[in-house]
Amino acid sequence: MPKIVDHTERKTHIAEATWRVIMKQGMEGASVRNIANEAGLSLGALRHYFSTQQELLAFAMNLVKDRAAARIHTVAMQDLPPKDKVIKMLLELLPTDDHKMAEMEVWFAFTFHRKQSGERFDAQHDGILVITSYMLDYLDEHHLLNKELDKQLESERLYGLLDGLALHALLEPGRLGRERIVRVLTYHIDSICIQ
Amino acid sequence: MPKIVDHTERKTHIAEATWRVIMKQGMEGASVRNIANEAGLSLGALRHYFSTQQELLAFAMNLVKDRAAARIHTVAMQDLPPKDKVIKMLLELLPTDDHKMAEMEVWFAFTFHRKQSGERFDAQHDGILVITSYMLDYLDEHHLLNKELDKQLESERLYGLLDGLALHALLEPGRLGRERIVRVLTYHIDSICIQ
Repeated sequence: MPKIVDHTERKTHIAEATWRVIMKQGMEGASVRNIANEAGLSLGALRHYFSTQQELLAFAMNLVKDRAAARIHTVAMQDLPPKDKVIKMLLELLPTDDHKMAEMEVWFAFTFHRKQSGERFDAQHDGILVITSYMLDYLDEHHLLNKELDKQLESERLYGLLDGLALHALLEPGRLGRERIVRVLTYHIDSICIQ
Repeated sequence: MPKIVDHTERKTHIAEATWRVIMKQGMEGASVRNIANEAGLSLGALRHYFSTQQELLAFAMNLVKDRAAARIHTVAMQDLPPKDKVIKMLLELLPTDDHKMAEMEVWFAFTFHRKQSGERFDAQHDGILVITSYMLDYLDEHHLLNKELDKQLESERLYGLLDGLALHALLEPGRLGRERIVRVLTYHIDSICIQ
């Protein structure tokens, strides 16, 4: 009996093959041919799922975003003190394990590729500025946020800090490992909360 | 009479041509041939200054670093209140004008290219972690730094914030322009100083 393959599952499989190609060869290597090869599919079979390289890359990039959003949602459902919950949710956006490190590498490669090819970029794309803003509101609703803060600037500062840490962890995983990332992020959240 | 061309000046001219090629075509386009073309030199003439592409790229990347260091040094020599001086020095590392924006773009392209090609990276390379640490010591010596701070974590946080802001300004120059960068950075430095 032929194996019944779910359409979305197969697309996800192809997206993951795309990530592996990008990690090994960079965006330059992310041709449809190389990706089909990595996924163990013929070019024709791959084209059944994605008619253009653009479409495939967009799907693979969105999958990074969707997975991070799903992880954050899982933490949001947990029964945790508000401050711990915020820290744990934000950690889902940082490369603290091999899996998230790979996602981050793909994300940066995609982002620079898009910039290079002149595509418009806005913070709504990765959605992190919305998330940082939401986290501050959440702390505020729980009366944890320091009252003198400028929430708009705090949101921008947290957004900058997150991507800076992500970038540095990606470039220097040995120096900025999980433990140090947790310490810096906790230190930051503590600094904006009521002591 | 033939024009006497200074050796270093010519190398700088080639490095600047390299930056322009990278900005237009990305690292993929940064072949010795394209760079010679952009610099208005023959391949042979270019090889007189740089025998390998690697050597040329390393020189062009170091020039970004040297120019930033020179700008910071200029600010350091100015007669300014310590906090203003720190903010002004740190702004030299952020893309607040077209020139620094171009440098930043080249810097990120280089950095990712080096990572992609498996080269080792450490924070000493860009030297910014040393600079952030020095800035905190400077504020502390002038009795401006909040006493309860963990200077090591503050240095890491400032380093993260700087590169995060640089990255975001590069990706979204319209949203995160000079004025907003100055506001966020000033806000951050104020938050770690005695009120």
